Amino acid sequence: MYSFNDLQAIVEKSFGELQLPKEPRDLYEPISYTISLGGKRIRPVLCLMASNVFSDIIDKAVKPAMALEIFHNFTLIHDDIMDKAEVRRGKPTVYRKWNTNVAILSGDAACIVAYKYLVQTEPTILPEILKVFNTTALEVCDGQQFDMEYEKLPFVTEDDYLRMIELKTSVLLAGAAKIGALIGGASAGDAEKLYNFGKYLGLAFQLQDDLLDSFGDPKVFGKAIGGDIIANKKTFLMINATKLAKGETLSKLQKLVKEPTDTPEEKVEGVKQIYRELGIKELTEDRINHYYNLALAELVKLSVREERKEMLLGFAESLMKRDR
Amino acid sequence: MYSFNDLQAIVEKSFGELQLPKEPRDLYEPISYTISLGGKRIRPVLCLMASNVFSDIIDKAVKPAMALEIFHNFTLIHDDIMDKAEVRRGKPTVYRKWNTNVAILSGDAACIVAYKYLVQTEPTILPEILKVFNTTALEVCDGQQFDMEYEKLPFVTEDDYLRMIELKTSVLLAGAAKIGALIGGASAGDAEKLYNFGKYLGLAFQLQDDLLDSFGDPKVFGKAIGGDIIANKKTFLMINATKLAKGETLSKLQKLVKEPTDTPEEKVEGVKQIYRELGIKELTEDRINHYYNLALAELVKLSVREERKEMLLGFAESLMKRDR
Repeated sequence: MYSFNDLQAIVEKSFGELQLPKEPRDLYEPISYTISLGGKRIRPVLCLMASNVFSDIIDKAVKPAMALEIFHNFTLIHDDIMDKAEVRRGKPTVYRKWNTNVAILSGDAACIVAYKYLVQTEPTILPEILKVFNTTALEVCDGQQFDMEYEKLPFVTEDDYLRMIELKTSVLLAGAAKIGALIGGASAGDAEKLYNFGKYLGLAFQLQDDLLDSFGDPKVFGKAIGGDIIANKKTFLMINATKLAKGETLSKLQKLVKEPTDTPEEKVEGVKQIYRELGIKELTEDRINHYYNLALAELVKLSVREERKEMLLGFAESLMKRDR
Repeated sequence: MYSFNDLQAIVEKSFGELQLPKEPRDLYEPISYTISLGGKRIRPVLCLMASNVFSDIIDKAVKPAMALEIFHNFTLIHDDIMDKAEVRRGKPTVYRKWNTNVAILSGDAACIVAYKYLVQTEPTILPEILKVFNTTALEVCDGQQFDMEYEKLPFVTEDDYLRMIELKTSVLLAGAAKIGALIGGASAGDAEKLYNFGKYLGLAFQLQDDLLDSFGDPKVFGKAIGGDIIANKKTFLMINATKLAKGETLSKLQKLVKEPTDTPEEKVEGVKQIYRELGIKELTEDRINHYYNLALAELVKLSVREERKEMLLGFAESLMKRDR
């Protein structure tokens, strides 16, 4: 079976050979640019790995795996316009490097290119794969819309927040795993288990991202710590802190959120102090473990020999193996 | 066989029953809103009609026909942001009625919804239909990109302009006709003829739009006359006038394009006077007829009985039957 590194190499090699039209340059260069910014390629790797669980030959999953990464890049190009994000992986975002119109249209083209790659697979399972992909793609849009709406609300419930990150982040991992499984020849039941594996793992991953934004090691996390706190993002941590804080602690938290502090560090430290007092770190870790265990439970139920599940277990471990 | 009006009614009825998710409202309402603005639904009607040429039962073409209209609406939502268009069919455009972020994301969702409808057809021909659709969809993006780039150029050649309108307008009509034909059971050869029929008809239609913008009857045309002239658009008329004008006429034309006039009407009348002097109206009419005849020639070559071609001939006539 292929290792994580093998599959990552297959994905990189395939993108190295990606043939996009040369003209119009401002339509296709932003797509190559965004893909070249790199990343761990977890969506295509998961797709290929899920396929490999059921089949030793994974060739038919390569193009759909690329489609998932191209689709992901399409959402990044458009999200960066909507979120006014200037930098991605240390480089200017498409709408900053070119302009908003180029980012809108090259994003559109990327979405269609994703479909061009998706359909390059076994015709007999194409309707099923398209059904998964279309549903997933629309849910990702739902997630981004809820995310933007929640930014404007004074308060968001934990349930709403979890549903939002499930749509915005998890379902694409879930869809990637399911599509890979179907191409590998999985039964409907096993494909659904792979879907749930990706979904729960995505939830654990996103909650860990929330946690690391406040409590990570800046050298390992790759971003400055406290960005979510400074931006008043209603993360899992903040939602629970607001729910659990009482009396003076609540007043202090509300003041930190509403009133400017002398320095951003003061705000970050003040909020983190409250998180510590309320046990928010432990509460979040518990929830991460909850979803992580749900993901692993799906692997247990898979009707394949144990050794074929090991790669997926390794994938889950390496996805979560970041500094807590 | 179904008449144009029958097919239009089928399309309207289908859109009346369109089930989009209720939530998030700002994601799906702009899609329903744009579709409800109406129009002649020429793309879905052409798709159904092309199907009807080869099959009496057109049920399997209804969802893909809707997909073509939804895709067209997606491009309108995004083009209106890029072109800063405030009004469409007398109503505010999506980015004006909501905002740019809503227009970007609901446009994205519309594109994916189009794919959801497209795939609801006969699985055996799905790969072929997706191939036509994906190629066409990407070409429509190419066309919009070239259109935006040409706006910034001092001069555009007639060939470049024709290629741009082919991509931006014609290929979607061509794709609609081909997809309908394939669903109806057409041979590859006949499907290609339908593609060319749509392509040439689209070129004739767009050139006629250019012509009517300067020489149409404002009561029939539905827009103020001379919009292209006021906006200095490099239409087929302007490109040819610039090419043919010599000496004093050329100086006059360049002055009208570059220097402000007392009133917009003065500019419109001045340019139209030059168009008349140079025979631009007749030259454009000749070209419209050229493409129109090429479209009809494709019908002649179709390997079906003459009476089955009549509806398409009627479609071509009614599409072009506007005040010249």
